[in-house]
Amino acid sequence: MIIVIQCKDQVGLVAAISGALAKENINIISMREHVDKEENRFFMRVEIEQYSDAQNLEEKIRNVLPTDAIIKVDPSPEKKIIVLVTKEYHCLADILIRNHFKTLGASVQCVIGNHITLENICDRFDIPFHFISHEEKDKVAFEEELQNAIGAYNYDYLVLAKFMRILSPEFVTYFPTQIINIHHSFLPAFIGANPYRKAFERGVKLIGATAHFVTNDLDEGPIIAQQIIPVNHTFTASGMMKAGKEIETAVLARALQLVFDDRVFVYKNKTVVFE
Amino acid sequence: MIIVIQCKDQVGLVAAISGALAKENINIISMREHVDKEENRFFMRVEIEQYSDAQNLEEKIRNVLPTDAIIKVDPSPEKKIIVLVTKEYHCLADILIRNHFKTLGASVQCVIGNHITLENICDRFDIPFHFISHEEKDKVAFEEELQNAIGAYNYDYLVLAKFMRILSPEFVTYFPTQIINIHHSFLPAFIGANPYRKAFERGVKLIGATAHFVTNDLDEGPIIAQQIIPVNHTFTASGMMKAGKEIETAVLARALQLVFDDRVFVYKNKTVVFE
Amino acid sequence: MIIVIQCKDQVGLVAAISGALAKENINIISMREHVDKEENRFFMRVEIEQYSDAQNLEEKIRNVLPTDAIIKVDPSPEKKIIVLVTKEYHCLADILIRNHFKTLGASVQCVIGNHITLENICDRFDIPFHFISHEEKDKVAFEEELQNAIGAYNYDYLVLAKFMRILSPEFVTYFPTQIINIHHSFLPAFIGANPYRKAFERGVKLIGATAHFVTNDLDEGPIIAQQIIPVNHTFTASGMMKAGKEIETAVLARALQLVFDDRVFVYKNKTVVFE
Amino acid sequence: MIIVIQCKDQVGLVAAISGALAKENINIISMREHVDKEENRFFMRVEIEQYSDAQNLEEKIRNVLPTDAIIKVDPSPEKKIIVLVTKEYHCLADILIRNHFKTLGASVQCVIGNHITLENICDRFDIPFHFISHEEKDKVAFEEELQNAIGAYNYDYLVLAKFMRILSPEFVTYFPTQIINIHHSFLPAFIGANPYRKAFERGVKLIGATAHFVTNDLDEGPIIAQQIIPVNHTFTASGMMKAGKEIETAVLARALQLVFDDRVFVYKNKTVVFE
Repeated sequence: MIIVIQCKDQVGLVAAISGALAKENINIISMREHVDKEENRFFMRVEIEQYSDAQNLEEKIRNVLPTDAIIKVDPSPEKKIIVLVTKEYHCLADILIRNHFKTLGASVQCVIGNHITLENICDRFDIPFHFISHEEKDKVAFEEELQNAIGAYNYDYLVLAKFMRILSPEFVTYFPTQIINIHHSFLPAFIGANPYRKAFERGVKLIGATAHFVTNDLDEGPIIAQQIIPVNHTFTASGMMKAGKEIETAVLARALQLVFDDRVFVYKNKTVVFE
Repeated sequence: MIIVIQCKDQVGLVAAISGALAKENINIISMREHVDKEENRFFMRVEIEQYSDAQNLEEKIRNVLPTDAIIKVDPSPEKKIIVLVTKEYHCLADILIRNHFKTLGASVQCVIGNHITLENICDRFDIPFHFISHEEKDKVAFEEELQNAIGAYNYDYLVLAKFMRILSPEFVTYFPTQIINIHHSFLPAFIGANPYRKAFERGVKLIGATAHFVTNDLDEGPIIAQQIIPVNHTFTASGMMKAGKEIETAVLARALQLVFDDRVFVYKNKTVVFE
Repeated sequence: MIIVIQCKDQVGLVAAISGALAKENINIISMREHVDKEENRFFMRVEIEQYSDAQNLEEKIRNVLPTDAIIKVDPSPEKKIIVLVTKEYHCLADILIRNHFKTLGASVQCVIGNHITLENICDRFDIPFHFISHEEKDKVAFEEELQNAIGAYNYDYLVLAKFMRILSPEFVTYFPTQIINIHHSFLPAFIGANPYRKAFERGVKLIGATAHFVTNDLDEGPIIAQQIIPVNHTFTASGMMKAGKEIETAVLARALQLVFDDRVFVYKNKTVVFE
Repeated sequence: MIIVIQCKDQVGLVAAISGALAKENINIISMREHVDKEENRFFMRVEIEQYSDAQNLEEKIRNVLPTDAIIKVDPSPEKKIIVLVTKEYHCLADILIRNHFKTLGASVQCVIGNHITLENICDRFDIPFHFISHEEKDKVAFEEELQNAIGAYNYDYLVLAKFMRILSPEFVTYFPTQIINIHHSFLPAFIGANPYRKAFERGVKLIGATAHFVTNDLDEGPIIAQQIIPVNHTFTASGMMKAGKEIETAVLARALQLVFDDRVFVYKNKTVVFE
């Protein structure tokens, strides 16, 4: 069972929390905490042995913490997600495989594509696919259709698995810290479109991928995970793109695992990640 | 100020320790703990804001812990080390540079070499060098000379910076968890002599280096840090050796930093490293 | 179009080969060569612009090379493979996905499993699955059944995607340099069974995976690719196994890409890999 | 002996060059070539067995190549360098150590500092140190003093080993493709001042370093080598800076090794690096 806590920092928080757990005779399996000194902010993740009454425990912990504390005891152990895609298969297929074999740590409710391309692969895994074209309509209408499709399901997170449309601030605001995107560059290098072409032209020796929460500023949201791979002069821009797909898949998978495992905390524009 | 604790695990340890700190109104900067379930062993490292009375604090913490607990409050902030070398300069030079610019986290008391080769570089940094040849004497006599030279200094650790003599169990036993070695392979691959030659002959695609505490079993002590670098068919055995020196230097530097910063705990043949 | 050449080394080979290509007015896109000095062996991979008559070109090149030369001009651009599995899905699923989206660089003819577990995922991708149990029969009978199933297809390579049976020398000899295995450790560390358990017990700080050609010596065949990931004291043996699966998948995918792209040469127990 | 060639691409270049070498009965140890298709540019590096008459060989090769060809046969095997520094020791010390032990592949002629800080370490290695302050003078006067100091030595390259002054276009133009800089970020992320502070504020999960040739555009010159290390929420900006120094040292060392070994070709704003 997991407990996650975020609040203003003050002396004695660890003692207060661990004391409350000890009073219930709860065994701590692992405890991670971090204090952001600049922001005076306290973050904690505790893994405990199974305990029967989560609600009661949450109340006991709340009693010893500052009033602004955000506490989750036993957050839903299996998250529900909706995946948004365009045409590229690599991130989606990886998610579908893990979902199918029950190793994703979440269950895919449906996939929404602004192209029909990836319907077939969803069918093969019995996952509902909704085709919502962005063509011949304005962004407001397109996003309204997205919202309607999304609204028909329960979900904890929306995963943009190479979804190549920029979402409006209004849409993003509706899902605070719930939208996870994979960006095909080592942010903040090569923000925006065609990062591999830009990387090729700059002659970089490493390319990367970044998984982040989506906020109103394009490619500026809190970063969850980043990885890179070496490239050299033999790589064309499309060779970089091909190599990049491997790392995009790996970084998104890693970020999702961390989020679904309640290891990622967001405060302002940064994350605390207890790996 | 650092507090390190190791003891048998039981319910309530975190609460007990953090409670003791809170009672003294001590602010925790960071706290890391680990429970080894198989060994039922508890490890903790706490970083606190400066506190005037370390001895008093240690007693207060001891009072709330099992009797077998190993506790160090404010372990010597600057460790003293003695470096043993043979002919290769790379690890020693890196240590001397860091020592000279006060970024080693320890102070080098002296260097002992079984060859005279590295005396000159020690002279340049005003570090005493003792030449103790292993030739024309048996191991007992050689090690007695080493012991005598070592005994003239204060030290926390002996660092084998490419010291190419195998030490006897008697010698090793005299310095429990105090001898740190850099082995030029990715242990447990290529234990023993000529690991680069063996790696070349096996045709591996990665070579590595391992920093570990020395125990009676050759190359079998608790591992502190390991790193690798890619190699390929263009590498000869001596090319691997040359490339390997870079990683040996880096891994030993990293391991020393972790040890000197009191981040490494040893229990049986393994380490807990709070990076 | 690709040309691969392997022969005894002698002065003037590059001139002879590039001269033969120039005489046909063929444009070289890229050329990689390697001489193994210890073995006095020459390896070359040339990528040229499309040329109409592969057979004629092969003859022209053969005329300028030593008689022992192994030459392939335009080796089958899309390899055919048969995949052998047991129960673990991760490597197979990755191969099936790439096969389905035509990015594998090979086409999967069928999958053979000694357990029924992975039949369903093969069905979803319309790939024939053959269940050949190893139970209640001796190895000779088991391998005869394997041979019969394999023999019904065309194939360039057999891929052991976590196939957990040890194959007999007789079987292996039948497929020289055609069987590719993924071993779940950083060879030559932890040869044989239960490498993650052994890695856990040794307390290593990195775990790895190795893709290699299978020869008669268990886990001793020519290595194609290796990768590692860091682990630490928080990993149980099963945690290492879980983390290891990610790297197993990645390493096998990388090795297959290299092999299918005719970038891997084998001589004795080593590979030359023109990445 | 090394031969490096750069020219406009055309059919038959490899045949022409290797033919010229074969005619002299020269044994090729290794040959690397690359064609930049977008720029229609040919690059080659050949390693041959010792040959007595470099000048004659250069002429013979020149005869078979386009007139614009840049050819160097046996470029000075030990480069001469001048190192420019400010206050940070890590890159300089690494260079001095390698220089001292004759493993740098170049010889340090002198060190120039705009602060006096690093004079002492140069003295310890008997390397001339010139203190040229940038204070109380304009950039023109400062750079004139630099030029005068530099002009008193023979040199192949200027190495900016954490030299924290921006050089004028006039100065840079005077040393085309001769100035190598280490930039403390993963370019093009965090161009300009305080990259670690910017990285900290952005909350990145990796930091990097970039070695590049200096051109008129700040931090925009051809990249030679890049590396990264992972960071996380526990790193302060100054913690990132400290960790970054390790990678800065490693990347600069790697880049210098490649340049001194004649493995780096520059064309327009990119490099070809035959590793």
